[in-house]
Amino acid sequence: MKTEFTFLLAARQCEIAELEQLAQTCELVGVIARFIHALQRERGMSNIYLSSHGTQFADQRERQIQECDAAEAEVRRHLDRLDTESCTARNGARLFSHVAVVLHALEGLPELRTRISLQALGAAEATAAIVKLVSGLLGVVFEAADMASDPKVSRALVAMFHFMQGKEFAGQERALGGRVFAAGGIDAGGLQLWRHLVDSQQGCLQVYAECAEPEVLHADLAARDPVVLSEIERLRRLGGALRGGLDTALSRDWYYWCTRRIDEMKAVEDLLAAHLRELCGQRIVQARAGLSDQRAALDALWERTASQGAATPAPYGPHLERSLFTMVQEQSRRLQAMGDELDSVRTSLNERKLVERAKGLLMAHRQLTEEEAYKALRQLAMNQGRRLVDVASNVLSLAEVLPQVR
Amino acid sequence: MKTEFTFLLAARQCEIAELEQLAQTCELVGVIARFIHALQRERGMSNIYLSSHGTQFADQRERQIQECDAAEAEVRRHLDRLDTESCTARNGARLFSHVAVVLHALEGLPELRTRISLQALGAAEATAAIVKLVSGLLGVVFEAADMASDPKVSRALVAMFHFMQGKEFAGQERALGGRVFAAGGIDAGGLQLWRHLVDSQQGCLQVYAECAEPEVLHADLAARDPVVLSEIERLRRLGGALRGGLDTALSRDWYYWCTRRIDEMKAVEDLLAAHLRELCGQRIVQARAGLSDQRAALDALWERTASQGAATPAPYGPHLERSLFTMVQEQSRRLQAMGDELDSVRTSLNERKLVERAKGLLMAHRQLTEEEAYKALRQLAMNQGRRLVDVASNVLSLAEVLPQVR
Repeated sequence: MKTEFTFLLAARQCEIAELEQLAQTCELVGVIARFIHALQRERGMSNIYLSSHGTQFADQRERQIQECDAAEAEVRRHLDRLDTESCTARNGARLFSHVAVVLHALEGLPELRTRISLQALGAAEATAAIVKLVSGLLGVVFEAADMASDPKVSRALVAMFHFMQGKEFAGQERALGGRVFAAGGIDAGGLQLWRHLVDSQQGCLQVYAECAEPEVLHADLAARDPVVLSEIERLRRLGGALRGGLDTALSRDWYYWCTRRIDEMKAVEDLLAAHLRELCGQRIVQARAGLSDQRAALDALWERTASQGAATPAPYGPHLERSLFTMVQEQSRRLQAMGDELDSVRTSLNERKLVERAKGLLMAHRQLTEEEAYKALRQLAMNQGRRLVDVASNVLSLAEVLPQVR
Repeated sequence: MKTEFTFLLAARQCEIAELEQLAQTCELVGVIARFIHALQRERGMSNIYLSSHGTQFADQRERQIQECDAAEAEVRRHLDRLDTESCTARNGARLFSHVAVVLHALEGLPELRTRISLQALGAAEATAAIVKLVSGLLGVVFEAADMASDPKVSRALVAMFHFMQGKEFAGQERALGGRVFAAGGIDAGGLQLWRHLVDSQQGCLQVYAECAEPEVLHADLAARDPVVLSEIERLRRLGGALRGGLDTALSRDWYYWCTRRIDEMKAVEDLLAAHLRELCGQRIVQARAGLSDQRAALDALWERTASQGAATPAPYGPHLERSLFTMVQEQSRRLQAMGDELDSVRTSLNERKLVERAKGLLMAHRQLTEEEAYKALRQLAMNQGRRLVDVASNVLSLAEVLPQVR
């Protein structure tokens, strides 16, 4: 028959198993970050290649595609290692389903590249296709953060996700600004979108700053060159002035400073990934130490009881009783506190969930594609000068008066 | 190399594995409900046995203890079947840790019974000891509800947990009222506690009514005899009048009507448990059908592609592409919607979490035991005429200005 000690030790072992699973997912997040970075560079180069009618960045783009392929292969190697057989992963269904979405999107990548090489599509279309792929990859990182069972690791994943998402908005801003400077001017819609991308970046980086470890934030600050951001600010003001006649040569300046900023962000991302890896390692070591401490304590208690012989367990009874009780209670309390902390860390993820839900609602009620639904929400937010999440929760509150489709 | 289809199917398989795990947990909840019911009866009988100085209910109590032992053995058999080796359970650590707490508390039961038989402790103390054991068992049910991965099952578990908790408050009220009538009067503190037990019951049964299936609620209503509740109301008014001189013979009436009500509740509880079992079965059948549909659809797609030969996949390319894309997207959306629904079902569990957290805080800061911490919170709530959860969140908001201990 299983005793309380079976369950006490099993609880510890489950914690360790979950942490090991989590460490594997964090490794995956790290290689996804590298792949996204490579895709972002490829996107930037394809953009200029297409805008310049194939005269610029042709060779760099080819080399970058090779780098991308290597990063993709690394992601696939990590995916191959995921245990898809025994379903031990917490929330495995959702993670795997997101991975399927990403793998599906990757199938289209070779054809997209051929069309770009042949200049068979516009820069905006090419950008949109890669934006979508990156968004799918970020979805995997989001699931990883949402399914993490350890509050410390979950917090680090929340920081990582928001940083990656902020960096992606910075990448999209680079592409948009590039097109604006290349065209020599901006219209009202373009300006609205530009502001939205800047606000979204700031929103993401704020959550990152709230969740990241002080040492990461410190290293981040130390590594940053203040000139980069001030140059970007200057160019934002120039590019955002609603009169034409921009010097198209500014396009190169814009690309240079944005790329420097994104490369700086890449360095921080590497730091975050390294920190995540280290944290998982530490937590596993701690949990293993906890397990062996508990085993040793139980063995000592058994021996003390045994040495008193079967006939005289009474004298140490209450003492033994109290030690065991303390152990059982402490573990239960500790896990409960961890669960509470986890809940509070996860609230940072609620904004994205609201937006996703509102998107789903629009897709169902208005027969929109995912992209159209997102654009509709974003347009509402931009028109009303409100945050995307506020518009999303407004849409959701309207849902109650709409007929149910789902 | 694993493809999107590996992950698409793996996601389904994980869903099935999680549902099977959940079905096992629901079975455990059912046997726990039967054990708690037996303990509640034993508690009621022990109460009268002790209050009557051993003259009443001596034989019934002995028989009830045997029933309790049988129910306990059944719980242990189910616990033995839990997979403590491979840690496949979602949130296994927390469930197992709660099970350890319960098994530990069960160790003390034989000694408690001996002391009751010898009339070596008071009725209030005996009641308190069994209240604590039942509370531990309810903690396991709570964890089961909190860790469920399927929103429908989770909702049914939330209904079940709140109903069981409400029934436990009804049992505590029976014990308290029994003591009041036996003593022939009540003091202000007793009255406050009585009101608290009635309010808590109503709060729990309200959540149950919000979460239970209409058919369960309908059967519940149909099975209830309106006389029972009106008799209890009448006796509550009599017993709660702050003047002494109560007819002590009312004690038997009180016990009779309360027991009838609790037995009615037991019938509803059985319904809820049966519904839970049925629901798990249905969900597993649905998930398995979904998996085999998906397998069949994928096979059909493969065959169509294969029959066109390797050289001519182009004509059906876009069509095939769309079918796969739809399948992948639909699955991802469905899981996301389930996750959202789950989050909203779980908010019903937040009240208890707040109270647990506030308790933990008081234990840490004021060096209280769990029981003392709960009593302190309850006293605050009763003094201020507020709900326990409001007092708890007040305590937690104070935590920010207190020094950190954890």
